[in-house]
Amino acid sequence: MQALVLADTLTYRTDFAEPVPAADAALIELSLAGICATDLELAQGYAGFRGIPGHEFVGRVVAVGDQQHNAWRQQRVVGSINIGCQTCPECLQHGPEHCAHRCVLGIRGQHGAFADYLTLPVRNLHPIADTVPDRAAVFTEPLAAALNVAEQLAQRPAGEIAVVGPGRLGLLIGKVLALAGHDVVMLGRTPASLALPAAWGLRTGLALDCPDNRFACVVDASGNAAGFAQALRLTRPRGTLVLKSTFAAGAALDLSKIVVAEITLLGSRCGPFAKALELLAQGDVPVETLIDGEYPLRDGVAAFAHAAQPGVRKILLSR
Amino acid sequence: MQALVLADTLTYRTDFAEPVPAADAALIELSLAGICATDLELAQGYAGFRGIPGHEFVGRVVAVGDQQHNAWRQQRVVGSINIGCQTCPECLQHGPEHCAHRCVLGIRGQHGAFADYLTLPVRNLHPIADTVPDRAAVFTEPLAAALNVAEQLAQRPAGEIAVVGPGRLGLLIGKVLALAGHDVVMLGRTPASLALPAAWGLRTGLALDCPDNRFACVVDASGNAAGFAQALRLTRPRGTLVLKSTFAAGAALDLSKIVVAEITLLGSRCGPFAKALELLAQGDVPVETLIDGEYPLRDGVAAFAHAAQPGVRKILLSR
Repeated sequence: MQALVLADTLTYRTDFAEPVPAADAALIELSLAGICATDLELAQGYAGFRGIPGHEFVGRVVAVGDQQHNAWRQQRVVGSINIGCQTCPECLQHGPEHCAHRCVLGIRGQHGAFADYLTLPVRNLHPIADTVPDRAAVFTEPLAAALNVAEQLAQRPAGEIAVVGPGRLGLLIGKVLALAGHDVVMLGRTPASLALPAAWGLRTGLALDCPDNRFACVVDASGNAAGFAQALRLTRPRGTLVLKSTFAAGAALDLSKIVVAEITLLGSRCGPFAKALELLAQGDVPVETLIDGEYPLRDGVAAFAHAAQPGVRKILLSR
Repeated sequence: MQALVLADTLTYRTDFAEPVPAADAALIELSLAGICATDLELAQGYAGFRGIPGHEFVGRVVAVGDQQHNAWRQQRVVGSINIGCQTCPECLQHGPEHCAHRCVLGIRGQHGAFADYLTLPVRNLHPIADTVPDRAAVFTEPLAAALNVAEQLAQRPAGEIAVVGPGRLGLLIGKVLALAGHDVVMLGRTPASLALPAAWGLRTGLALDCPDNRFACVVDASGNAAGFAQALRLTRPRGTLVLKSTFAAGAALDLSKIVVAEITLLGSRCGPFAKALELLAQGDVPVETLIDGEYPLRDGVAAFAHAAQPGVRKILLSR
């Protein structure tokens, strides 16, 4: 089958063997996949992943590992990406995303979605309503991650929240927080980066124009150490800073403000797929305007290069 | 008067002018002062402070700036260290420790306690019960900071908490958390560092012996970037890490675990003086066993050198 394969570099191959689903799993034919910041980092060597990357996808179940799962056949699906051991305390208490022995689709120990076919346990699958097109459903995973931020901040009274980094993930977070009733301001480095946030009806501003300690609540979705430093600068004493983006290990950081100003830093990762699919069905998040390009798998290397350009939001891959 | 003065280096001087208290302030004659990690960092150039350092002290009020404060005369006192503008939102909501325009005794914009005399607003002063000796009262400020950690964790059910860094501050934090009902384990780098924690009745262990993700709640009181990395390594997914120590800016840090494991990082700084004085009066915290040496002000430079040695906990300065 066709696949993008990450070894020392990312290459397009046509000779990769089709996966065979285990008894608890389904074989899924790819319809559409999205390239995410994590994929770009994996391609730079982050986390040492080798294999087929890709974890944002829409597909159709074409086979199942055991006939008890026949109801999934022909179902259009998205899938959550963590596969836990299902027995450790973390799995039982927090779910598979915090299992120390987990595999993560296209990120850790499990081939991902940038291929003709992938497999996932059926317990990870979510059916997609007919009213949600592929080009919206492919945003389920990042939209779920955005919803997780809203859930972590659900205890706060509705108020002003700054989102630093108006990229694909930052915009989803901003919109979800606005739908939850918060007064969101999207902060970027350039006026050009703020055009789409404004078109989504969000208030915008240049991060550098904001004085120190301007916001009681800030979300860092910048994806880089400089953005994190900016977000921390803007957070008021005793304020909350949500850290949504991983960035290269070993960046030179100054955490002294976290202590001196008694900041609460909340790490945030995966979120609820079912709720994200509901939100997509409601049509309140114009996710398709995030798409800056769509490439066939055979042009995947060029698609990665496009996705890595500054200001580009979402690049899709299709069969 | 005698004073230790920080310019390019720390020097002992005898020609420093006695301070004159403002109308809202008292003139305090030093009895005893403690050298803290922050003082050692200031001496290394941290925060650019120039002047007389020192913020942990016991003294006696010898004059007041206005006779309405005469009741303070001859009172034995400790003093909280932040002097806010009393008008900004941070002062009104959180108190002077988060005022952007604050002075901090011996740390920012205000000469400190390593001198014959210092001044502080009378609103910063706390009288000391006769039953609390100077050598205990001098620990009021760090004990208050330790109590702040306990207050920040007060919402947690009593449970296991690891304190990384069994130094002066780590020990106070561990003891306060144990008195609050938590099951505390003090983690150090060497067996020698764990002798005093064990003598204080606390469970101890070597941090390196603990597996990843061992604790749902960890306090980093190590004072260095390596200790922070160790504390983060030990924190369980969705766990809480209290950051109590500032360390040199620009350390190479990897915060990706905060995101991936959805850690909550809580910055922690100053605490309640009155409550610390009550605890000292009860005698449950054997603070005097932290004292590794006492020097007259004229030997202050040697005292700083002693305080900077590995494994040394508290060095005191007296007139």
